[in-house]
Amino acid sequence: MKMVDHWQLPDGVEEVLPAQAEAVERLRRQLLDLFHAWGYRLVIPPLVEFTESLLVGLGEDLDLTTFKLTDQISGRTLGLRADITPQVARIDAHSIADEGVTRLCYAGSTLHTRPKSPFASRSPIQLGAELYGDDSVGADVEVVCMMLATLEAAGLSGITLDLGHVGIYEAVLLHAELEEAREATVFDALQRKSVPDLIQALEGVDPGTTALIIALAKLHGDESILDDARALYAETVPDALLGLDTLQQVARTIRRQRPDLDIYFDLAELRGYNYHTGLVFAAYVPGVGEALANGGRYNDVGAVFGRARPATGFAADLKALMTLVPDVTESGAISLPGVDDEALLLRARELRESGEVVIQSFSGEVDPRCDRELVEMEGQWLIRPLKTTGRD
Amino acid sequence: MKMVDHWQLPDGVEEVLPAQAEAVERLRRQLLDLFHAWGYRLVIPPLVEFTESLLVGLGEDLDLTTFKLTDQISGRTLGLRADITPQVARIDAHSIADEGVTRLCYAGSTLHTRPKSPFASRSPIQLGAELYGDDSVGADVEVVCMMLATLEAAGLSGITLDLGHVGIYEAVLLHAELEEAREATVFDALQRKSVPDLIQALEGVDPGTTALIIALAKLHGDESILDDARALYAETVPDALLGLDTLQQVARTIRRQRPDLDIYFDLAELRGYNYHTGLVFAAYVPGVGEALANGGRYNDVGAVFGRARPATGFAADLKALMTLVPDVTESGAISLPGVDDEALLLRARELRESGEVVIQSFSGEVDPRCDRELVEMEGQWLIRPLKTTGRD
Repeated sequence: MKMVDHWQLPDGVEEVLPAQAEAVERLRRQLLDLFHAWGYRLVIPPLVEFTESLLVGLGEDLDLTTFKLTDQISGRTLGLRADITPQVARIDAHSIADEGVTRLCYAGSTLHTRPKSPFASRSPIQLGAELYGDDSVGADVEVVCMMLATLEAAGLSGITLDLGHVGIYEAVLLHAELEEAREATVFDALQRKSVPDLIQALEGVDPGTTALIIALAKLHGDESILDDARALYAETVPDALLGLDTLQQVARTIRRQRPDLDIYFDLAELRGYNYHTGLVFAAYVPGVGEALANGGRYNDVGAVFGRARPATGFAADLKALMTLVPDVTESGAISLPGVDDEALLLRARELRESGEVVIQSFSGEVDPRCDRELVEMEGQWLIRPLKTTGRD
Repeated sequence: MKMVDHWQLPDGVEEVLPAQAEAVERLRRQLLDLFHAWGYRLVIPPLVEFTESLLVGLGEDLDLTTFKLTDQISGRTLGLRADITPQVARIDAHSIADEGVTRLCYAGSTLHTRPKSPFASRSPIQLGAELYGDDSVGADVEVVCMMLATLEAAGLSGITLDLGHVGIYEAVLLHAELEEAREATVFDALQRKSVPDLIQALEGVDPGTTALIIALAKLHGDESILDDARALYAETVPDALLGLDTLQQVARTIRRQRPDLDIYFDLAELRGYNYHTGLVFAAYVPGVGEALANGGRYNDVGAVFGRARPATGFAADLKALMTLVPDVTESGAISLPGVDDEALLLRARELRESGEVVIQSFSGEVDPRCDRELVEMEGQWLIRPLKTTGRD
């Protein structure tokens, strides 16, 4: 008979134990404080919403990634959020509904039916910031700078910033006038930067158009690729130039603030951008294959809630960052004897309020974290070092 | 044609907007810091687990309250947690598996298929602390004191502490030797303290036993009911005396520390205690019908994960507490002109790091939270008050 493994967790669903949980909490506070200092206000969207609110107009990928539940009260279908950004867009469009610029931030658990990449968590703790009501490059730059500041606050260095622009791909595809099914195949091959697959997907398309699309797969590298793209598309796809200009402007503004930052351009990098409409960006660090934070512009997502608004923002997974930051080291604690004495309890209360960790010992067993203890001497409770025991 | 209401949230599922969200966050930090000072270490259990881990041995109530999902990867059934305490018990029993006393705390979102009471939230943010490995009254007292300190930290006063003990009810029922179906009806009637329903449920049971059970429904009030219970059960149900002794010992220890605390005893109050085995407790404040925090002893829940451990703990809903604490008031912010100037950006960075909120203004539109602005005077960026505008 096979024993049921009562403690096994589902694949990609992790628990976080004390030392790391405390590191996550410290980072969470640090980053929410950072967002606050930039004027971003906290919201707490719910774990579930009706799928009509959570998924409409946001693409098939998000739909497939979202767990569905039946609400016993309404009989309607609920989605367990796989992404918090659309929820925040709804809050901006409907619940807050301010004119002008609205800045919001959040941190919360999400769940994915399938991991986004082979080794990704299915239960990220998503933390991010979103800026609504401004369509300028200034807003894009602010959000990119916040993303970089987020990773820096986590103590990461050697960051590479990846920049792309969905509008360039869209302009080229609009020009190509492919049928819908072929478009999906092309998109997929382009993600993988697979030129052979692209050639196969574009079989029968005229050679000029084919070349314009295949070029996208090769247009990645330093700022010089923007000039290459401009030369290539100036005559054939002039609508792509706006995106190229935005990329250049964003890169130059950020480089003035961070001259040493490594900036990489990639006109085919659209992976993970389900509902984006303009600039897209991601941040990498050496030795980690997946982006540690990403985001972009997603104008008009709120239209389904009654208001089309310019929108840009970014998000990161606290659990992914956690693996790169040091655990919180214990600072030692004070043992509190299990004696029912009013003066002792008052002393313990004062010590706790002053930031000390005071741990009661039951039946004489002292918590191994304690390096000091409270002892009574001449009617007073004093702190003295604990004798080191043999147990290292 | 009926429009789909894209922004309606499911009944009992709330979003939290900025002023209140910031109050929730402040309280969350304050309470986790309080738990830390008492030696409780943070864990982050996952949103979902296999139902075998999440629900086994914890009663039908929790099962019915838990949303179920099908895991596409394993094909097995997942439960979306309705209660975090059993997850923490699993972590103590299996993942940490220390001998001796383990103190753990947590804060996270939960979801209920149905509200626990007519006006309750279905999406509480559960925050709590659990103590494993000690079966003494001292451990019960520590957890009750932490629960009281939690509500006091939230600024609540006039707290009433309700105490009960599952062991007393169980001893009386064991003595009565009722058939299982009748036991469930009796339990239900007892919850409602309905003597007529109890009489009906106990039809055919001998009058002596009936009287012992009906007495439970009336045994609530000040400490004198413990003496009444002791007189009633001393001869007939001696196993009930242990529970009565625990109640008295806990109450007296707490009263020495908090002479003004209102303590209420209730031997029939078992509602909401699904898996509890001993002392149970709850805290109320004037004007709020529902308990704001509750908990109790739940020994041996970890047995299914390979280790039977003494356990006691409590939990509260941050969203319920939120409605009773003041919103965070804005402290004012500094407007940052949208000028690409290195000295200005450095100044903004310093101000943000010093705790100021600095909000960039795009195209001259100043965020209404700003009461000061950065202006250039003789080559330096200085802060000056914003002229008050006509818009209040």
